[in-house]
Amino acid sequence: MLTATVVEALHRVLPADRILDDPDVLAAYRHDEAAWAEHGRPACVVRPRTAEEVQQVVRACLHHGTPVVPRGAGTGLSGGANALDGCVVLGTEQMATIREIDVAERLAVVEPGVVNDDLRAACAEHGLWYPPDPASAPWSTIGGNVATNAGGLCCVKYGVTRDYVLGLQVVTGTGELVRIGRRTAKGVAGYDLTGLMVGSEGTLGVITEVTVRLRPARPPERTVAGYFPALTAAGRAVAGVAAAGLTPSALELIDRATLVAVDDWKNMGVSAEADAVLLARTDAPGEAGEQEAEALLRCFTEAGASWAAASSDAAEADALFAARRLAYPALERLGPVLTEDICVPRSAVPAMLDQIQMIGRRHTVQIATVAHAGDGNLHPVLVVPAGDEVARARAEIAFDEILDAALALGGTVTGEHGVGLLKRAGLRRELPEPVLAMHAAVKQALDPQGILNPGKVIACAPPC
Amino acid sequence: MLTATVVEALHRVLPADRILDDPDVLAAYRHDEAAWAEHGRPACVVRPRTAEEVQQVVRACLHHGTPVVPRGAGTGLSGGANALDGCVVLGTEQMATIREIDVAERLAVVEPGVVNDDLRAACAEHGLWYPPDPASAPWSTIGGNVATNAGGLCCVKYGVTRDYVLGLQVVTGTGELVRIGRRTAKGVAGYDLTGLMVGSEGTLGVITEVTVRLRPARPPERTVAGYFPALTAAGRAVAGVAAAGLTPSALELIDRATLVAVDDWKNMGVSAEADAVLLARTDAPGEAGEQEAEALLRCFTEAGASWAAASSDAAEADALFAARRLAYPALERLGPVLTEDICVPRSAVPAMLDQIQMIGRRHTVQIATVAHAGDGNLHPVLVVPAGDEVARARAEIAFDEILDAALALGGTVTGEHGVGLLKRAGLRRELPEPVLAMHAAVKQALDPQGILNPGKVIACAPPC
Repeated sequence: MLTATVVEALHRVLPADRILDDPDVLAAYRHDEAAWAEHGRPACVVRPRTAEEVQQVVRACLHHGTPVVPRGAGTGLSGGANALDGCVVLGTEQMATIREIDVAERLAVVEPGVVNDDLRAACAEHGLWYPPDPASAPWSTIGGNVATNAGGLCCVKYGVTRDYVLGLQVVTGTGELVRIGRRTAKGVAGYDLTGLMVGSEGTLGVITEVTVRLRPARPPERTVAGYFPALTAAGRAVAGVAAAGLTPSALELIDRATLVAVDDWKNMGVSAEADAVLLARTDAPGEAGEQEAEALLRCFTEAGASWAAASSDAAEADALFAARRLAYPALERLGPVLTEDICVPRSAVPAMLDQIQMIGRRHTVQIATVAHAGDGNLHPVLVVPAGDEVARARAEIAFDEILDAALALGGTVTGEHGVGLLKRAGLRRELPEPVLAMHAAVKQALDPQGILNPGKVIACAPPC
Repeated sequence: MLTATVVEALHRVLPADRILDDPDVLAAYRHDEAAWAEHGRPACVVRPRTAEEVQQVVRACLHHGTPVVPRGAGTGLSGGANALDGCVVLGTEQMATIREIDVAERLAVVEPGVVNDDLRAACAEHGLWYPPDPASAPWSTIGGNVATNAGGLCCVKYGVTRDYVLGLQVVTGTGELVRIGRRTAKGVAGYDLTGLMVGSEGTLGVITEVTVRLRPARPPERTVAGYFPALTAAGRAVAGVAAAGLTPSALELIDRATLVAVDDWKNMGVSAEADAVLLARTDAPGEAGEQEAEALLRCFTEAGASWAAASSDAAEADALFAARRLAYPALERLGPVLTEDICVPRSAVPAMLDQIQMIGRRHTVQIATVAHAGDGNLHPVLVVPAGDEVARARAEIAFDEILDAALALGGTVTGEHGVGLLKRAGLRRELPEPVLAMHAAVKQALDPQGILNPGKVIACAPPC
């Protein structure tokens, strides 16, 4: 009854084309890329076109006590956008306008449904650059990137999404439509509510507009590639780059299993008789860039690379980076995958890679690893043969052991994908009770009725 | 009675030398550099030496319902560390150990009382750099810098204190001693409580340890100086630098009144027959630095500089930057000062400088302006003859009108000094009611008894 009621209420306040309830459509909105995590059947999907329509949705849900699950492109890997039974999924795909690119202030104002790559392309036309570049950039939206504080390849030098969000317009847990943050370069007027919203995965507010800081377009990058006979040798190279005081603009690791999967799919000719490939980039200008490329090459060689070269061959470098970006879909062809997202101190990368291999062997789980290695942010991808429930159970144990190993090395259970549903138990292992209590208190303060994406991030049911 | 009681309770849990109640000492701890703002008489001053002692202080204050006012070096300019009658002032000067500088991870772990310049010097010995450099860097502490999210000269390229805080240890409003944040390069495990603490001016927690991100030491800087016949011409140069896509590592403005005050005091020979000086720096490496210096010079000339030069003469450049750092004490010699801290969009700098001049003339108030001009962060300093209450009343009106002008130009009432007491009314003008309500809710969530620096930042009395 309640379910019917909220949909009826939404029909009263929104144009009919904003509300979808076709069963096939609802099925498509049940989960993000974390299909392994639990997901329910939404009462309906709404696709508002304005901030005021979003506010109407939240107010209707408040009135009916119905959970609102915000969703960008659904490329999340932790289940943050997975539906609850009877919830309203709020998709932002109809709010995809770039409202403003201000060259003098180096900022852009966008609606949440703008695709990451589309914003980057629009900025490039003005000689500006929006750095955060998750592997999902061709599909994922700025709103989703902000909700998860998405990372990416260039974070190692340029930081994560939070570092670029100046201000937000959000609908709050009490149904208010507000602007927080600023448009100025600096500002300390009050608490950093903007930073608090970033990465809160829709549990503290629904984003209706984002103001991002931009950088000037940067010089062309040089690429350094290295093939390593063992994962741990590549790990030593990563630690060496940090110790040498270098700041590459990307430092990615791809293991052999991933390269083979990409080649099997796309026949790009990137797999090789090596256990790991490291891809570094530098965007330092002119001579400084040459020097940094040489220094990176030295680090690779000293760590035991079987082959390494600084490439001015853009095609070869682009092929390797394309392979990096295709890693997830290539691995998903092999069967259901469980994607890890641990982050450890840079110097612990070799030890962590070692642990991952041991855990995979111990539980007979195929683990392919790609990594933002320069950040210590590793993505072991656990691949399970389709339909093999026993293998899946083994993979779930391995998943948990990888989390424990990361924590033991001083790391975190999630570097950039977010807690969502898959990392809630890990979060409880990572954070002590009083810090979890602070989370619950903040959630209660800003979403007193517990209707904003309840059950995500923090494990308690509303009211906390 | 209550006052006596909390001091007695503190004596029971702390060594006697941690507790100061000499009336002269108490007088020295009544206010920070914002003596104009209200301040009371503390019951005592405590100077704990460990995080556990801080926790004991907060717990005793919780038990007695006594406000705790955390204080670093007392160099704040907004009254954030001003005492309340009967409060406990918690000074961090006895917690001044640099615990760790990790070269491979590029981070440092420090106690809150470490002086900003001391941390920078210690990092330099390891080839590393802690960028945030408020003008108070020789005296102010990292704890105070974090509490106010301090800015400085190099923010224009390298960001503010918040951009460098990875993790904190804090005593919460419920008396728990917790670590929040991380040591890894990335991490999204839960809400950004660390960022929320930064800039919260001691109202959400008492900082007992700070983990900061470091950068590799940078190349030597080149300086470009320009003299301008009018403030607004200098403002045009600032807007021109932004429009040209340049990213100087400093872009400071000093007006004639400030230069004269510095020369009258230190006889440095920096004042000139010009209304404004712009000081830019670039730390781009090698040839790129030369090119950026030339481009800055071009911007200055095109905006109407009467003289401009790229200087490799470190002595001359250093003298001008020293004058910038001496601006506040030099102006304070002329009489009580009221320091503004507005931040406007970069393109609005000329208009804002114009407004400041008009407001000064309208109310017959001497206003000397220094500015982190490249950020649009202006510090008009209102100087009042000592003992002239009528002039002071005029200055307070001018102060408010400058805030209104900044807001009208799309700016904020505080770019880097914080709200404290002096900007509470301004904050209410800047933020709409629902956003103020979010602040109150967060404060209530994390400091339910309202004992952490009550009355600062948000105007309501506890409980909010």
